[in-house]
Amino acid sequence: MAKEITARAENYAQWYLDLVQKADLADHSAVRGCMVIKPRGYAIWEKIQAKLDKRFKDTGHVNAYFPLFIPKSFLSKEAEHVEGFAKECAVVTHHRLKKDPGGKGLIVDPEALLEEELVVRPTSETIIWNTYRDWIQSYRDLPLLINQWANVVRWEMRTRPFLRTTEFLWQEGHTAHATAEEAIEETARIHEIYARFVEDELAMPVIKGRKTASERFAGAVETYTIEALMQDNKALQAGTSHFLGQNFAKAFNVTFLTEKNQNEFVWATSWGVSTRMVGGMIMTHSDDDGLVLPPRMAPLQVVIIPIPKPAPALDEKTEQILKALKDKGITASYDKDERNRPGFKFAQNEMYGVPVRIGMGMRDLENNQVEVVRRDTREKVMVPIDGVAGYIEELLVRIQHDLFEKALKFRSDNSHYIDSYEEFKERIEEPGGFFYCHWDGTPESEARLKEETKATIRCIPVDQPEEKGRCLLTGRPSSGRVIMARAY
Amino acid sequence: MAKEITARAENYAQWYLDLVQKADLADHSAVRGCMVIKPRGYAIWEKIQAKLDKRFKDTGHVNAYFPLFIPKSFLSKEAEHVEGFAKECAVVTHHRLKKDPGGKGLIVDPEALLEEELVVRPTSETIIWNTYRDWIQSYRDLPLLINQWANVVRWEMRTRPFLRTTEFLWQEGHTAHATAEEAIEETARIHEIYARFVEDELAMPVIKGRKTASERFAGAVETYTIEALMQDNKALQAGTSHFLGQNFAKAFNVTFLTEKNQNEFVWATSWGVSTRMVGGMIMTHSDDDGLVLPPRMAPLQVVIIPIPKPAPALDEKTEQILKALKDKGITASYDKDERNRPGFKFAQNEMYGVPVRIGMGMRDLENNQVEVVRRDTREKVMVPIDGVAGYIEELLVRIQHDLFEKALKFRSDNSHYIDSYEEFKERIEEPGGFFYCHWDGTPESEARLKEETKATIRCIPVDQPEEKGRCLLTGRPSSGRVIMARAY
Repeated sequence: MAKEITARAENYAQWYLDLVQKADLADHSAVRGCMVIKPRGYAIWEKIQAKLDKRFKDTGHVNAYFPLFIPKSFLSKEAEHVEGFAKECAVVTHHRLKKDPGGKGLIVDPEALLEEELVVRPTSETIIWNTYRDWIQSYRDLPLLINQWANVVRWEMRTRPFLRTTEFLWQEGHTAHATAEEAIEETARIHEIYARFVEDELAMPVIKGRKTASERFAGAVETYTIEALMQDNKALQAGTSHFLGQNFAKAFNVTFLTEKNQNEFVWATSWGVSTRMVGGMIMTHSDDDGLVLPPRMAPLQVVIIPIPKPAPALDEKTEQILKALKDKGITASYDKDERNRPGFKFAQNEMYGVPVRIGMGMRDLENNQVEVVRRDTREKVMVPIDGVAGYIEELLVRIQHDLFEKALKFRSDNSHYIDSYEEFKERIEEPGGFFYCHWDGTPESEARLKEETKATIRCIPVDQPEEKGRCLLTGRPSSGRVIMARAY
Repeated sequence: MAKEITARAENYAQWYLDLVQKADLADHSAVRGCMVIKPRGYAIWEKIQAKLDKRFKDTGHVNAYFPLFIPKSFLSKEAEHVEGFAKECAVVTHHRLKKDPGGKGLIVDPEALLEEELVVRPTSETIIWNTYRDWIQSYRDLPLLINQWANVVRWEMRTRPFLRTTEFLWQEGHTAHATAEEAIEETARIHEIYARFVEDELAMPVIKGRKTASERFAGAVETYTIEALMQDNKALQAGTSHFLGQNFAKAFNVTFLTEKNQNEFVWATSWGVSTRMVGGMIMTHSDDDGLVLPPRMAPLQVVIIPIPKPAPALDEKTEQILKALKDKGITASYDKDERNRPGFKFAQNEMYGVPVRIGMGMRDLENNQVEVVRRDTREKVMVPIDGVAGYIEELLVRIQHDLFEKALKFRSDNSHYIDSYEEFKERIEEPGGFFYCHWDGTPESEARLKEETKATIRCIPVDQPEEKGRCLLTGRPSSGRVIMARAY
């Protein structure tokens, strides 16, 4: 089974594609750039949704739903937004098909031309702020803390399952505040929620930082990001939280009456994470035998495999173990399909990323023990049956912890402090990684960096100490290091 | 506050619109026919999603996600499907906007014309069966029991929030089976899940039945429906489950190898319920003072209002009550906003449909009691504080039960057995309701009925006893009664 996918060392990009397919996570579709999220992939997204949604609600946010379509004219109301999002998008021009009078297929009915074209939302700031104008009159209507779970479309030229697809699923928060301070606080709160969620649940270490002006969200005053490092030493932006200032309030004329009875523009934030997170998690932990999932994100945490096949005594004992696991809130299943042999099942569950496998044969039963195997390390331990649920409960916590530590060590091993541009240019090729370098703060140097090395400034880390230095490219003064890397 | 909405007796349609707006459930949007689902409305949909999703998963279904877009040619592959769904839909023809060289707005870039137009899914049978072709090879791949939570678009001419909107949210199940029997069993299983869910959770009594051939889903062999009666005596179709035969398998060439090594077409079902359910629930229970929600569907079940305003002793006692309620799994909140008076809060929470209100003043505290008021009947009871959580737990069960019984009685009072077409034509105007009538089974009589009375055959009830009779319209023989009504 392991031979079914390309080795990471051989071709990391192909390994990823093979893995997504063989682990039954996603499939191609008949529509260019759109994927089908298969049940095993969608189950991971459902866990992300449920856990993130709880964190949003625990901090006072509520969900709502805004239209899929945005009138074309809305996109040009915010000067910078139009640059970022009015380019590659799906444009609805007609509202009817009719039978082709000259053939047996369908044609667009030319009489059903829309007065104004509609764009399938690439992001919803415009339609939402157009709505907020009616919802916000006074300071008593603020803050508005709204989130939406939705699909969005950006017409991407090069796509990759989960990481970049034309249609993708995400959540987008859109909040409205009476003061800049409150909005900035909200931006930071979400930034922290994202970081904690990704580290605690997905076991993906992230760097919290600010984007440079040229990497900001189109229409934002400040964009905060969480950046992770993948196993091929490329960076992945895993979530962003934007302070939008009064840009969208001004574009859509959303004002409120303050306590002092003055009319002011409303302050805004927006923030989102997407199905891209699933891709990041896959790339962070998985190996040449398939998917590796942190236990907290695994739809199935434990599989029990009878050796060599089901038998009444094994089935009965398994029922007891399943019940004990369920009582501890652990999801487990018994693979009693008789059409496949244990070796096949071992490989298949490794491919699927089930964190723990229990193997049990008749002799094990006589010895009152089972074999417990970790997916991540392959470590095998014989465990007394009576204590197996408790053992696995602890083991799942340990695996979650170890996966995070392993990824953290990988990032640490591949984070470099570099002051020579020559050295940088060499090491960005091989081995790659996160490069902490000085930058003079100009968009010109940033553009040159990208042009000459294909690396970008991933972020200005928020907890980076001040350190005087000289720009990697120009030698001009710099007050601190930024992170440069090639990125997904 | 009650005066804010039109009375039902005066104008039921306007009452509904007023209610949706004043209860903060939904709002208009800038896009024709699309609504914004506001947080209070979306919270109801979230409860529907969570509870239905659990019922689907408990019966072996899994979720997945298929693309929003469907290639135009897919729609014409199933002969009947194209008639039903290739008409009014949103058609994507281009993938780029550009700056208007002659103005300051945006225009569609004529160079970004798609080779084949894409339709925003009105329903997903076609794209899903095109995908299933790759997923199904042998009987070992069956059954496939997949559900999708998604948005769909049907370009409706006349829209009404929740009941009929251009874009709406729904779930669509699409299952694949090795035999017709299994597929029919699945259709029936879902039909029953829908009926149980709507009756047990939404407290809406429904009639289970089959649709006539002309009311079937386009492409279905048999369509099962659940039909509810609204307070204005019009019917509402609340959910449908379709047996699709091999129609889509044939259209998309989906075959499988049987255990006997023969190639056969796969059997299919599809089934869905939508945000329309929210509208049906609103219309079933609400009154002239606003929303009435069955407790199981109420995002907030209990509100506690201090009289006349918060005070330390009240706040402290309220905390205890809130905790006791929470321990019983009851959602409750304390309305301690000092800007509004109790009377305003009473009316507001009635408008919002909070099932139970607790009022508590200092004198109540001295007497160690609180006032408990049911939203549905306005019945007021003084309850000892010590037992209030237990009292409310039982009260919520009682309200849920009473709402169902009340709706059931309404339906029963407005169900008529009619054998004279003259009488039917009179009574369908006033008072309306469900009419159990004989029908000769021909599409001609059915079409005439619709033409002459605006009523349709809602369903052929599954538990209707055989009864020989004569068709209401033609006098020709009939073997049982069907339900005729005007419908949403």
